[in-house]
Amino acid sequence: MSVTHTEVTATLDPCGASDHPDCGIRDMLDRVGDTWTVMVVTELGASERRFLELQRAIDGISQRMLTLTLRRLERDGLVNRTVYPTVPAQVSYALTDSGARLTHLIKALADWSLAERAAIAEARQRYDDTHPGHGIR
Amino acid sequence: MSVTHTEVTATLDPCGASDHPDCGIRDMLDRVGDTWTVMVVTELGASERRFLELQRAIDGISQRMLTLTLRRLERDGLVNRTVYPTVPAQVSYALTDSGARLTHLIKALADWSLAERAAIAEARQRYDDTHPGHGIR
Repeated sequence: MSVTHTEVTATLDPCGASDHPDCGIRDMLDRVGDTWTVMVVTELGASERRFLELQRAIDGISQRMLTLTLRRLERDGLVNRTVYPTVPAQVSYALTDSGARLTHLIKALADWSLAERAAIAEARQRYDDTHPGHGIR
Repeated sequence: MSVTHTEVTATLDPCGASDHPDCGIRDMLDRVGDTWTVMVVTELGASERRFLELQRAIDGISQRMLTLTLRRLERDGLVNRTVYPTVPAQVSYALTDSGARLTHLIKALADWSLAERAAIAEARQRYDDTHPGHGIR
């Protein structure tokens, strides 16, 4: 069976201006469903950071990906970019109030994930033992 | 610039058994970073559901995708699958305690997203007006 047309269109353009709960979920995943965004937001949750500080703190992020992620967050109004008139100019990034609210929620999810890690590993082992050859990853 | 080797390996196999906060985030996104998983978990947050009830409630999900999503959640110990010995047999899905804790967090994120929706749309408009041709989506 292949992915249906309905499924694809629902994923691409689900909600418009609707305030159905499903749309909140889809919006949220569009915005924060990727690792780099979540890691940048979490890092800025600690304090304002300069570009190079972020790049050093986030293991494995490239300069290009960090630039893109910060621009998207700035465009969404979740991050403020400030240029300080030093020589050379310093550019610094900080969460807006909305971004700070998001950080608390992401931190709660990451804490849940760490807290459940051992239980999930055990559950997977049990499932794999009782469902040989299921092929799920 | 292309994605670096470090970036790819960090994404694919970031953490092993580490309990660094970054790993909680990556784990969490691996587990709940896709729309269907989040929607199934949220739907089961309301109450136990049969397969067809879930399929009807989640707009656009295919039978195949729902089957896969439920199996992954069952394997992670977030969902319990119960077969009732009726004729024909009824199969029902419910959140485990761990899955229920996750639901509360996801709901908080979806609520944040709906609450911020108007502000984010305004922020995007402002950004697009002041950064013509930026090419970010």
